Amino acid sequence: MTRRGEFELIAEVFRPLAEGDPLAFDLGDDAALVPVPPGNHLVVTTDAMAAGVHFTADTAAVDVGRKLLRVNLSDLAAMGAEPLAYTLTVALPRDLPDEWVEGFAQGLRADQTRYRVHLIGGDTIAAADLVLSMTMLGRVERDSELRRGGAQPGDTLYVSGTIGDAGIGLRATRGELPDLDPDARAFFLDRLLHPSPRLRLGRALVAVASAAIDVSDGLLADLGHLCEQSGVAATIRLDDVPISPHAAELGGDGMDRLSSGEDYELLFTAPTQQRDAIAGVAGRLGIAITAIGAIAEGVGVRVVDADGNAIAVERGGYTHF
Amino acid sequence: MTRRGEFELIAEVFRPLAEGDPLAFDLGDDAALVPVPPGNHLVVTTDAMAAGVHFTADTAAVDVGRKLLRVNLSDLAAMGAEPLAYTLTVALPRDLPDEWVEGFAQGLRADQTRYRVHLIGGDTIAAADLVLSMTMLGRVERDSELRRGGAQPGDTLYVSGTIGDAGIGLRATRGELPDLDPDARAFFLDRLLHPSPRLRLGRALVAVASAAIDVSDGLLADLGHLCEQSGVAATIRLDDVPISPHAAELGGDGMDRLSSGEDYELLFTAPTQQRDAIAGVAGRLGIAITAIGAIAEGVGVRVVDADGNAIAVERGGYTHF
Repeated sequence: MTRRGEFELIAEVFRPLAEGDPLAFDLGDDAALVPVPPGNHLVVTTDAMAAGVHFTADTAAVDVGRKLLRVNLSDLAAMGAEPLAYTLTVALPRDLPDEWVEGFAQGLRADQTRYRVHLIGGDTIAAADLVLSMTMLGRVERDSELRRGGAQPGDTLYVSGTIGDAGIGLRATRGELPDLDPDARAFFLDRLLHPSPRLRLGRALVAVASAAIDVSDGLLADLGHLCEQSGVAATIRLDDVPISPHAAELGGDGMDRLSSGEDYELLFTAPTQQRDAIAGVAGRLGIAITAIGAIAEGVGVRVVDADGNAIAVERGGYTHF
Repeated sequence: MTRRGEFELIAEVFRPLAEGDPLAFDLGDDAALVPVPPGNHLVVTTDAMAAGVHFTADTAAVDVGRKLLRVNLSDLAAMGAEPLAYTLTVALPRDLPDEWVEGFAQGLRADQTRYRVHLIGGDTIAAADLVLSMTMLGRVERDSELRRGGAQPGDTLYVSGTIGDAGIGLRATRGELPDLDPDARAFFLDRLLHPSPRLRLGRALVAVASAAIDVSDGLLADLGHLCEQSGVAATIRLDDVPISPHAAELGGDGMDRLSSGEDYELLFTAPTQQRDAIAGVAGRLGIAITAIGAIAEGVGVRVVDADGNAIAVERGGYTHF
């Protein structure tokens, strides 16, 4: 096992991720420059991951790189923003092999090409355990960003894709689902490790949605954030929450998936008259969009069954402490 | 010992650091917005600190907050940039008391007011040990930024303030200087814990300097970075390197201070005809600026004594691995 020095690590592993951007200065200056087009605001978000908390020791380094990039991009998607570039802090234990860092960078490289974003700076430090922090920069036309706080009573509540798959993937990695068939297992792990930041959807929703958030802590928790910021209440029709065919095969009462995190779908609201526009966006982008509830005056989130009867909600989403 | 939950910590401790900026959305949205004035580029830098590596367990939390902010601002200073806002990742051990986090935020608050910058976003995660990462955003008028790569043969080499004080402060914290008198000790610790980001100097140098870097790894190491980026060689006249009266009292051969890091002074180059302009900047800002050497064609950094004889250079600056 060899371990490069700090400057070699930057030069050999991270510098290639900045190639092609003259204003990143090959990561060789005190700071990088980012041009922001006239009429645009810069959009900034930061998300971090720690070994043993956000991923297990047996998670492939390449998947850690891909996921860190994608969860940050998901925050831009929820603002309707276009990605520009990112900075990265890697706190590395001294006994972490170079191969891990190379695998991590390989994951970043694969997805930064896919999502047209690149590294422009950061810091590499030694620490007792592995912590990775990314700050993602994007742009949005001034006053056109999607916010959490714009939902209005009477709006319809929508979600993209399917809900609960990443949570099932997490249970699978913990050995809780030993009887899962290989296809289903691969599907859930892919949803857990490679979430799809809904960037194109976010951009398309700029003109039609009243509020948006990405589902990271869990549908109930994130809807709670949206309602709190908007000063409204929401009702979810449990039977309408979209689930994947593989998840449907597993059965269950459906409440688990409301508090299952990390799906990174977009949860958003829109006035009822936007229904056709939203159907058009879904068709054009090939992304399932499902109406799952409604916004009302008041406070809090209710869940109802097919007959409109309230279902008791017992737990919220994920918190770190 | 109590410990707040993640959302309470953000709401009660960090949200006040974002107050007054409507585009930070009270840290309650997926991302923050930053307006960048027309004709400016965004400037981005990231610096991180870990407990046990960058500060010891007995460093006051308030000083950790102040230093993290100041070292990031120092990178903006070295680019000639004006600060705008910052994001913050805090990876917190579960047994870290709330009081630590509150002290840390108090340090941020004190200095963000002083330097007119504020928090706009970030992430709070649990981790096995304490890691703090900050991304600082600033702005600079397009094509006016200071770079490391602009030094030319014939340029004069300058440094601000005094060199080596922070390194002596570090030795004092390690108990290596038991005979230090209290005034001197207080001075060196202040230089170690509260470096002065040379923001006004950096802005003033935009029109006169050919290259600049901040002294974080050590004068020799950072001059090495500047020379490498500029494709030039440099000579330092050891006797001309400015030291503080307290450091002068300690004596020594002066070579130590060339590899002593964390002074966060600006090291810069300028054509000889800018000599009067630089003296004017020094006088106007009340900051000592000293000519300590010269740039030449070639590769590498030489140190010479008062007679111009080369002095052997044995060690470089600080690296993490």
